[in-house]
Amino acid sequence: MRILVLGGDGYLGWPTAMRLAMGGHDVAVVDNYLRRRLAMETRSEALFANPDLADRAAIFEAVSGKRIAVHTFDCADGARLSDLVRVFGPEAVIHYAEQPSAPYSMIGEHEARLTLQNNLNSTFNLIWAVLNHAPQCHIVKLGTMGEYGTPDIDIEEGWLTVEHKGRSEKFLYPRAGGSLYHTTKILDTDLLWFYVRLYGLRVTDLMQGPVYGLATPETDMDPRLAPNFHYDDIFGTVINRFLTQAAAGIPLTVYGRGGQTRGYLNLLDTLQCVELALSNPAPRGELRIYNQFTELFSIRDIAEKTLRAAALTGLTASVQSLPNPRKEKEEHYYNVEHSALLNLGLQPCLLSDERLAEMQIGRAHV
Amino acid sequence: MRILVLGGDGYLGWPTAMRLAMGGHDVAVVDNYLRRRLAMETRSEALFANPDLADRAAIFEAVSGKRIAVHTFDCADGARLSDLVRVFGPEAVIHYAEQPSAPYSMIGEHEARLTLQNNLNSTFNLIWAVLNHAPQCHIVKLGTMGEYGTPDIDIEEGWLTVEHKGRSEKFLYPRAGGSLYHTTKILDTDLLWFYVRLYGLRVTDLMQGPVYGLATPETDMDPRLAPNFHYDDIFGTVINRFLTQAAAGIPLTVYGRGGQTRGYLNLLDTLQCVELALSNPAPRGELRIYNQFTELFSIRDIAEKTLRAAALTGLTASVQSLPNPRKEKEEHYYNVEHSALLNLGLQPCLLSDERLAEMQIGRAHV
Repeated sequence: MRILVLGGDGYLGWPTAMRLAMGGHDVAVVDNYLRRRLAMETRSEALFANPDLADRAAIFEAVSGKRIAVHTFDCADGARLSDLVRVFGPEAVIHYAEQPSAPYSMIGEHEARLTLQNNLNSTFNLIWAVLNHAPQCHIVKLGTMGEYGTPDIDIEEGWLTVEHKGRSEKFLYPRAGGSLYHTTKILDTDLLWFYVRLYGLRVTDLMQGPVYGLATPETDMDPRLAPNFHYDDIFGTVINRFLTQAAAGIPLTVYGRGGQTRGYLNLLDTLQCVELALSNPAPRGELRIYNQFTELFSIRDIAEKTLRAAALTGLTASVQSLPNPRKEKEEHYYNVEHSALLNLGLQPCLLSDERLAEMQIGRAHV
Repeated sequence: MRILVLGGDGYLGWPTAMRLAMGGHDVAVVDNYLRRRLAMETRSEALFANPDLADRAAIFEAVSGKRIAVHTFDCADGARLSDLVRVFGPEAVIHYAEQPSAPYSMIGEHEARLTLQNNLNSTFNLIWAVLNHAPQCHIVKLGTMGEYGTPDIDIEEGWLTVEHKGRSEKFLYPRAGGSLYHTTKILDTDLLWFYVRLYGLRVTDLMQGPVYGLATPETDMDPRLAPNFHYDDIFGTVINRFLTQAAAGIPLTVYGRGGQTRGYLNLLDTLQCVELALSNPAPRGELRIYNQFTELFSIRDIAEKTLRAAALTGLTASVQSLPNPRKEKEEHYYNVEHSALLNLGLQPCLLSDERLAEMQIGRAHV
């Protein structure tokens, strides 16, 4: 299959591109290094320096014999994206090309504007590039579980059938994000759902939870093929951050009471989910929505797991509770349907204390 | 009250500005004549030439003694809007500054992009101008009943309490618009609701139906003070279009079966509703949503009413059914709650055959 990966330099984009290339697909990636620039501006650089995309692709080709075509431009530039879709003619596009940090989007007006414009324009430009040049193409869009927020009823898988005054209607599950970043993902979903309904686009929207881990069979081929690893409060996701804090001998930073519960998954499972979405494409005019995670944890759960994993590896770790900088519920109901990807064959890689300890050793060795 | 009217050159914006100035408020308007430019480009100019805003304000001041301050710039230009909010210090902003045509937004990629960027950027810039310079200011935002689409359950007033598996949650009523224009209004509501929840903005979002009519006490003071009157298939709303078709002796153009049902209101009632919203401001951190219309009509109802009104005025009118260019349900359930504005004191000006005939004569005299 000809597959275009937008945001191919990212924590998920680069491992995805390698996995698909190893699977025999014809893969092209696009990135403009926005995340790298924002990480520099906010002094939140990744723990290791990552080669640029051209170098990554060259290293990957040397060890695997597989080519990944590299394009460096901004997907918020509609003409460039349209030209590439026309020339490459993808059968699927995986759309990761968004400013990925919720905390970044909440710094102030400039950061909010950049996030809104970058994310929405990338999605809008992709929609029209596909409508104009590859209308059969399947768009696999990375959304986030954070679109749903923390409602007091069960979160269903994308849709909600409402019984009301003796009548019934199936709606897109109502969304309310906790940051401007999450809100831009809601706007993306609104836009995609509109173009699916009225123009017959084929879209799978993956409501993904926070991802952890670094190792995939492809990243293991050469240490320079690892994805970017962020551990800070801007671009780091919580498990990666706690592992790094434990390794560095500083306390794990828990915001508030730590009852914030979310669905998490291993990077390996993200790759499985994307492959499952690709091999079960939505028909034209259908928006498929999958809730993409494997386990629910509260922040307290993760802190306790990290303490146990640290003990297994001989590290002494501790927890520090910080005043919560976010406006969010610290204790809440959270029951989420997520059977669709399991039904498609997802084999979860769950987070045992032992696996966390192995990840900890991986970190500790660096 | 110091009131800023964004989109002050529009069909609703200009009559609103005059009404508020007559009511003793300190009124400033902003417009960049986008609608006039798009009407020229699509050859959908208004039936009469309207003076520009500076001339309108001068004519209005000559007949009323009341000043309206005029600013001509693009609200999608954040710096200009921010400066004006800082200097003028409005206590309320009425936000009409959006590309207002659903059919225009569906012409193609260019028109869709313009609509998305113009509408969303205007709203986003207003949000930040108010957060930065007038955080107590009440934003009255013109949304549309079209945000709800035509679900198979009752449309409630902004919110929907869902009982699900023995639990309950109150959500923003799920929305699904029939055009990209309507979708941009949904995105506006998503954005405003986010900034209300997390930043304590004060917002009233008016879900307005199609408006008809031209005459207000202020427009009656001088014929040059009339709002722009569009009767075409791009900028014209249906009642105004049918009146013009009847006057011109051409058949009323009904799309498909004509069962499309919506909530309509007279321009006079729009002005009442905006005044009611202003005098009942949302407290900080609350999003008020009103469904703003007075009567439900199907397109068939309106065509029949127009035929009867034409007969009363001695005109012979007829109806032509056209293949529907829109992707929409031509027969559907439609039951809509709209008691909030009535409870605040709205005195509806309903559309009797006689009133329609008077409007017809008004048109016929031109």
